[in-house]
Amino acid sequence: MDKEIDLQNYSIRTDLLIDAVENFENATIKVNERQEGDIVINETEVLKDNDIKKKGKYITISFNDVTDHNNFLKVQNVFSSEIKKIITSLNLKQDYKTLVVGLGNRNSTPDSLGDKVCDNIIVTRHLFDLKEASSNYGNVAVFTPNVMGNTGIEAEEIIKGIIKMIDVDLLVVVDALASSNIERVNKTIQITDTGISPGSGVGNYRKEISKDALGIPVIAIGVPTVVDATTIVTDTINLLIQKIAYLKNDDPKEKLKPRDKVDFLKEKRTSLNDEEKSNLLGLVGNLSMEDLKSLINEVLTPIGYNMMVTPKEIDFVIEKIALLISKGINNVMHNLER
Amino acid sequence: MDKEIDLQNYSIRTDLLIDAVENFENATIKVNERQEGDIVINETEVLKDNDIKKKGKYITISFNDVTDHNNFLKVQNVFSSEIKKIITSLNLKQDYKTLVVGLGNRNSTPDSLGDKVCDNIIVTRHLFDLKEASSNYGNVAVFTPNVMGNTGIEAEEIIKGIIKMIDVDLLVVVDALASSNIERVNKTIQITDTGISPGSGVGNYRKEISKDALGIPVIAIGVPTVVDATTIVTDTINLLIQKIAYLKNDDPKEKLKPRDKVDFLKEKRTSLNDEEKSNLLGLVGNLSMEDLKSLINEVLTPIGYNMMVTPKEIDFVIEKIALLISKGINNVMHNLER
Amino acid sequence: MDKEIDLQNYSIRTDLLIDAVENFENATIKVNERQEGDIVINETEVLKDNDIKKKGKYITISFNDVTDHNNFLKVQNVFSSEIKKIITSLNLKQDYKTLVVGLGNRNSTPDSLGDKVCDNIIVTRHLFDLKEASSNYGNVAVFTPNVMGNTGIEAEEIIKGIIKMIDVDLLVVVDALASSNIERVNKTIQITDTGISPGSGVGNYRKEISKDALGIPVIAIGVPTVVDATTIVTDTINLLIQKIAYLKNDDPKEKLKPRDKVDFLKEKRTSLNDEEKSNLLGLVGNLSMEDLKSLINEVLTPIGYNMMVTPKEIDFVIEKIALLISKGINNVMHNLER
Amino acid sequence: MDKEIDLQNYSIRTDLLIDAVENFENATIKVNERQEGDIVINETEVLKDNDIKKKGKYITISFNDVTDHNNFLKVQNVFSSEIKKIITSLNLKQDYKTLVVGLGNRNSTPDSLGDKVCDNIIVTRHLFDLKEASSNYGNVAVFTPNVMGNTGIEAEEIIKGIIKMIDVDLLVVVDALASSNIERVNKTIQITDTGISPGSGVGNYRKEISKDALGIPVIAIGVPTVVDATTIVTDTINLLIQKIAYLKNDDPKEKLKPRDKVDFLKEKRTSLNDEEKSNLLGLVGNLSMEDLKSLINEVLTPIGYNMMVTPKEIDFVIEKIALLISKGINNVMHNLER
Repeated sequence: MDKEIDLQNYSIRTDLLIDAVENFENATIKVNERQEGDIVINETEVLKDNDIKKKGKYITISFNDVTDHNNFLKVQNVFSSEIKKIITSLNLKQDYKTLVVGLGNRNSTPDSLGDKVCDNIIVTRHLFDLKEASSNYGNVAVFTPNVMGNTGIEAEEIIKGIIKMIDVDLLVVVDALASSNIERVNKTIQITDTGISPGSGVGNYRKEISKDALGIPVIAIGVPTVVDATTIVTDTINLLIQKIAYLKNDDPKEKLKPRDKVDFLKEKRTSLNDEEKSNLLGLVGNLSMEDLKSLINEVLTPIGYNMMVTPKEIDFVIEKIALLISKGINNVMHNLER
Repeated sequence: MDKEIDLQNYSIRTDLLIDAVENFENATIKVNERQEGDIVINETEVLKDNDIKKKGKYITISFNDVTDHNNFLKVQNVFSSEIKKIITSLNLKQDYKTLVVGLGNRNSTPDSLGDKVCDNIIVTRHLFDLKEASSNYGNVAVFTPNVMGNTGIEAEEIIKGIIKMIDVDLLVVVDALASSNIERVNKTIQITDTGISPGSGVGNYRKEISKDALGIPVIAIGVPTVVDATTIVTDTINLLIQKIAYLKNDDPKEKLKPRDKVDFLKEKRTSLNDEEKSNLLGLVGNLSMEDLKSLINEVLTPIGYNMMVTPKEIDFVIEKIALLISKGINNVMHNLER
Repeated sequence: MDKEIDLQNYSIRTDLLIDAVENFENATIKVNERQEGDIVINETEVLKDNDIKKKGKYITISFNDVTDHNNFLKVQNVFSSEIKKIITSLNLKQDYKTLVVGLGNRNSTPDSLGDKVCDNIIVTRHLFDLKEASSNYGNVAVFTPNVMGNTGIEAEEIIKGIIKMIDVDLLVVVDALASSNIERVNKTIQITDTGISPGSGVGNYRKEISKDALGIPVIAIGVPTVVDATTIVTDTINLLIQKIAYLKNDDPKEKLKPRDKVDFLKEKRTSLNDEEKSNLLGLVGNLSMEDLKSLINEVLTPIGYNMMVTPKEIDFVIEKIALLISKGINNVMHNLER
Repeated sequence: MDKEIDLQNYSIRTDLLIDAVENFENATIKVNERQEGDIVINETEVLKDNDIKKKGKYITISFNDVTDHNNFLKVQNVFSSEIKKIITSLNLKQDYKTLVVGLGNRNSTPDSLGDKVCDNIIVTRHLFDLKEASSNYGNVAVFTPNVMGNTGIEAEEIIKGIIKMIDVDLLVVVDALASSNIERVNKTIQITDTGISPGSGVGNYRKEISKDALGIPVIAIGVPTVVDATTIVTDTINLLIQKIAYLKNDDPKEKLKPRDKVDFLKEKRTSLNDEEKSNLLGLVGNLSMEDLKSLINEVLTPIGYNMMVTPKEIDFVIEKIALLISKGINNVMHNLER
């Protein structure tokens, strides 16, 4: 047993609502989607708790690429206004005190988003205590509990401990997520007022970080930065089916659709019939998404794969997204003329 | 166009001989494999140049896990003695001058192996120039050219330029590789006297770094740190076939074989017949490895996937392997009583 | 007001007992000094609280250079046995639970010692909770609160909060210190059972981290990594005086003393008389150490100097010392056969 | 002998012209100073080579603080226009090819400026080779040779080697400097067309990086990020004298001058007479600047001080200045509408 015990506790989880949205009956959710240029903003309200997702607001911002300077600014503006909206809806007192918590493992690039965001947050709480803060600034503290594998302590215990000691009105939690859809990696920001719930996502046994658990409102900001091996294999088999479907498809709109803007939910409608599928992929071809995933999972697991799938440029992109989120938070928390 | 132009030039290539070894007719290679505890040392000599691999010696050290302290020391000893053997076989003059070059992109964790190794090499060339070097030390310089995407300059041009300026008798090149076999990631070290050849491995258009190109002997040390998306999908489909094959296999030895020690080359022998395969996987089931790979590749490419598959603990493991290789090189270059 | 607000809260303090030892009347301290090779171990017991230092044990290990491999091992052994002694003297229950806290600012190299030590501590607390810990290991968690300038929260509040949440029997606090003696920078480790006391050292307004404050024993491990500008100026003026004194000194032992092993406490005894001093340095020459310091301080302060003096190789040495301390702690906490 | 051999080769040198300017007779230089807000731009032309500085243009931009966002933008604009002016004066061909070289030791924060600047330069050379570069972009490559202590190779040999291999019309060299005036640390950017000359500055035995040596124009950009121990002691003794002088000074303008905007060159004119000095500081008080410096140096050296003096916030400020310089270079090299 050596330092590698760290590795047993890799915190990234799947909890993008948008990946699960199709599993809801319409009764339980209210969806509202709009577009600003390339950016799609999906506001979904889950009306009652259920086995998939917690009751509450989920805002999903989908975009193409934040490594382009102009695109970066557009996404930053959308993010700022959405986070402002959701915080305003909480009706906090005028001089509310915020604690921004960056979850994740700073030593693992795709999981270091929370840590990097906190590096760029303008921190003022201590200046208020010293009566040195300018009136333009809100009262903000930050904290990065790191992961249990590195510290031996549940992030959630540390957060509870700090909240016992200092006066906090709003908790903002930033975390890297895993996606079950490779198209979303580094191209989606989810904002929710439900906090982070246990069991949402793969292998997350952390206790809940939410208003119910902590007694104060919790805004969770998440970005999918990896997918697991199972996902990329499943996605690829689906892509294979869609590719064939596409080739035999005679709807001109489909033909013209640029291949780099594949819309999975839509694509799923134009597909192969069962016979075509079993010709192409045999028994595997006729499995449901869920059965296919669990088959692949079963195949990969025993050999103890502990693999993540991440873009080659992750080190560079994660910096950009962290900067975008921290600027958005700074804009909402503080009155900065930038 | 912004800094992301970096990303177009991600240097990791596949060039593990061992992944290609089964493609040789026996006439062209001489293989010699031995075991020390868990560590397998494969010495393969490619007898004449061919379209797969350059003529020369290839030593492949396969091991389980270097994050365990004792295992680390065992692998380090094997590596040290193998690198000593291959350097000795070059019959260099007694006071030969070495340049250790760390290839790769220091800003991308899985590609930063070369850079991290160079950080730990004991550098003495300048002390020899100043007549300050102790007699226990060899003459060693290091250099990290970084990748063309970061610098705009071919690593190979930079290396040639330096060799024009300073006196070098031996070039040691350290690089992260991609594997076409996920089992090998961070569990294999390849040492070869052939240098790094163009076209060996995916998407590598760098010119050759070899004795032919540079006029001095080149030892290349490589460790696979990633696999590409195509590989993990192909491997998984093969694993799926093997899993079914295994379940219907009645050889007790197979049944007892622990699943975390799957030997791919062997496994491939016990498999399904064509009918079973097409029941299971339809047309896909009966594709050859090559055809399957190129199909998957074709499916993944148009959507512009630029994904790598890497262990979740890569940040931690890469440090350990870099330390192991640098200690091995230091031991061979310098007489250190450790 | 921008991110530079960080900089107002630079945590390094002076609290080396050894720098203050001459200010005690003999009644209040019991000193015991021994030598192992080049390494000097000073055990001082402060018998009652006073305005300089808290009552308790202070062990000061002085050495030359830990960048030399053999010296590193010698100092590590001394450190391990001293930390073991002081922990043993606490008579903790057999399966005591330890929390190692790394204080300081991870973004400022000389202040990042605590953070770097925690990176190398073997963490097991979560494995005990999961009943997965091997019997060779003690129960250890780590934590790095960072500095108030970065988080807006007192490190001490965070520590108190965590101790409220988790069960801890021993707190080990690691921190970078400032020295008022440039000879000690990176060449001294102080271990004390008094914790960290307010007002000890310059510009430290943190509340106390001690048994009195937290209710559990606190071992503080400190290494001076910087001196402030005032110190280097004052030291230099003293060196100037000593240099002249030395030149006119006819004690052969003094003449033979190698200049790179100046012993300040001793040197101070062989000096110039007042007339010689005022010839050399006028009014300044006859100031007491304290008056000289406060004059220099006064001169430097108004121009807002915020300078630290640190060795050029600090980035390299800090890694070595952090490794030494973490190995020492690991050896005491866990039964590792290395 | 261990990795600490690195440390023998710390590259930072003093070569700010402005520190030496008072040593020139007026015949040899033409000075032109102007102010934009808080920013002072000093253009000095050295008319013929001499033992202090090489013949050529020296532009010195002095500012207060680039950690403030608005100030950052102002200084960035001045820097961009000054670097544009000096490059324009070289009359390069329209599609000139630039190589930006970042000198210094990336492992030592105050010496890592060149490396950090290169991280942010938009690199295009390889895209021109691939005919992929947009017309808005100039042809730019970057390179960081690191320091001899880390590589065993002179930076200047590496640069010569690269220039032999690739086609370069303009070399831009970025380096951290040492200042002999603590007021200038992180508050001055020097731009010169003379390159970097040997012997300018303390402990620099590198050969010349200049048009004479390389055959192509060389623009050197330097920022003082440290001062040596000798400087801070000497400055403090001068400050002491000036402080007393100031107290007895009855010029109201002086009295009103805020103490954090001390102008050294001016201050030096209001001082004490010799008698006052020797009362205050004895023999030391009447030493010339040069004699005082060499005395202090002599005092500090034998004890092997290897100290640097740097602001506590260096890690943060160096990032800002590197960003400023890289943005300035990007603006001049490429037509970016930002």
